[in-house]
Amino acid sequence: MRAATIREKQVGVEDHPDPTPGAGEVLVRIRAAGLNGADIMQRAGKYPAPPGSPADIPGLELAGEVAAVGDAAERFAVGDRVMGIVGGGGQAELCAVHERQLMPVPEGLDWAAAGGLPEVFTTAHDAVFTQGLLKPGERLLVHGAAGGVGTAAVQLGRRCGAHVTATVRSQERRDDVAALGAHEVLDPEGFEEHGPFDVILELVGAPNLSANLKALATGGRIVVIGVGAGAKAEINLLVLMGKRGTLRASTLRARPLEEKAATARALEAQVLPGFVDGSLSVPLAETFPLDQVAQAYKHFTAGGKLGKVVVEMG
Amino acid sequence: MRAATIREKQVGVEDHPDPTPGAGEVLVRIRAAGLNGADIMQRAGKYPAPPGSPADIPGLELAGEVAAVGDAAERFAVGDRVMGIVGGGGQAELCAVHERQLMPVPEGLDWAAAGGLPEVFTTAHDAVFTQGLLKPGERLLVHGAAGGVGTAAVQLGRRCGAHVTATVRSQERRDDVAALGAHEVLDPEGFEEHGPFDVILELVGAPNLSANLKALATGGRIVVIGVGAGAKAEINLLVLMGKRGTLRASTLRARPLEEKAATARALEAQVLPGFVDGSLSVPLAETFPLDQVAQAYKHFTAGGKLGKVVVEMG
Repeated sequence: MRAATIREKQVGVEDHPDPTPGAGEVLVRIRAAGLNGADIMQRAGKYPAPPGSPADIPGLELAGEVAAVGDAAERFAVGDRVMGIVGGGGQAELCAVHERQLMPVPEGLDWAAAGGLPEVFTTAHDAVFTQGLLKPGERLLVHGAAGGVGTAAVQLGRRCGAHVTATVRSQERRDDVAALGAHEVLDPEGFEEHGPFDVILELVGAPNLSANLKALATGGRIVVIGVGAGAKAEINLLVLMGKRGTLRASTLRARPLEEKAATARALEAQVLPGFVDGSLSVPLAETFPLDQVAQAYKHFTAGGKLGKVVVEMG
Repeated sequence: MRAATIREKQVGVEDHPDPTPGAGEVLVRIRAAGLNGADIMQRAGKYPAPPGSPADIPGLELAGEVAAVGDAAERFAVGDRVMGIVGGGGQAELCAVHERQLMPVPEGLDWAAAGGLPEVFTTAHDAVFTQGLLKPGERLLVHGAAGGVGTAAVQLGRRCGAHVTATVRSQERRDDVAALGAHEVLDPEGFEEHGPFDVILELVGAPNLSANLKALATGGRIVVIGVGAGAKAEINLLVLMGKRGTLRASTLRARPLEEKAATARALEAQVLPGFVDGSLSVPLAETFPLDQVAQAYKHFTAGGKLGKVVVEMG
């Protein structure tokens, strides 16, 4: 098969042996696979793939058709449309994935959207609901809301009946984020005057921590899943005590099969119906064919547009 | 009634009007009331009583007999032995307490033990189980284990089937803490070499934070309920992400009635049976009659002994 391949901190396309599905696995003929920040980190040599995933093929999500079924795999049949997160290897023509990590592609969703859905919606749903325990009527703050996970979190928060506040650095993207359902879209400076917030999704990093604590509601939860702007900050534990607050931090990629599978079940039950009823969508910035994967990475890192960058296969 | 009274940062005994039980309240003729660190902070003017509690009578816990019952109170009858946490006013001859905050005194428990039980066992149980979600087979680390809450946490952790590690600064108290059920008792320096720990109960403060993060197991929870040694520390959020960790902080005193009542129900169901079957005990350092409350405070702040200091009423 052909696959995006990381070699000397560059991404190109190379031939690789076709994977074969092991017990419980499904071989997916990939039609689309989104790019994510972790791919860029991996390209730079900073975020190696976890054991069991190909070391040199990037791609944390994929969508495609079932091409073959391994022993004891029974959830899907050849030809079924599936999607899911993987530890790596998504940006390729084929990938063997455990069937418990896969979800059916909602009817009516095209390949580009399906290929860009799993990572950001799984990450956002896990962070906001499974970790942050957001409930209807609560106030959600999403930092970095114009990014992939941010756009998913804004939509999920709005859809569950929460009040959604978003911070967006770029003036040009604020209308887009408001259109996704944010009740208010703020500049990051001074956001703490708009609290208190029950759940704060931190996609930017440590520089927000002190203001996040100030803006936290009693019993509130801060969930950190991105620290691009810095990882170290001073924390005042007395303030956290006074708020009876929780600071959680997480990543998806390093989790074992059973935990990744649990996120897929949660998405199937709680999120995918929103793509059928029209309350959720995958914002797409641009798609590229696999042989232009280098341009796709360039486009992704350039930033400036809202939505996913997705690689499409044949 | 006579009551311990804070005046100009000193504690003495003064006469106060008898409280009357309001709707849902019970008037308790107090027999014993423990001292806690919060009393010392309140005496220093640093921790005012919450609204609804007497401003000048310290005491966060009490045990005694029901002397009268207010309208619509139905859980207890006159003469019943009761105990519980209060927002203040425990170190007095009488206190009106909402019946939902009170628990029956376990059979066989004497007044001094009952008066010193509620605050530390409620705090420890809430922190370790309700906030920290400790489960059998997990590893619990208790910092400051020779203090009141620490001695309760060590016993509760041992009783639930967890592996309990305790840190104790004073060499002289380590055998006592081991006798309470700690599997290992360590000097605070270098404790992080003994991890990983699933739940870390932080009773000391910010100086431990960085080593706590290092010693945390994947998916582990740090629960901060004491910051006597300092409140501010640097936190590395990337380390917390890598551990998929949780940092929670809490206090009991500021919580509303429904939350305090919920802690009392949890204690009744999950903790009090341990005082009947002998698996739990209230370590007592010393008791003082109410008219020697000033000496009781002096003894408490002097430290050096393991167990509760309790004031007994006539």
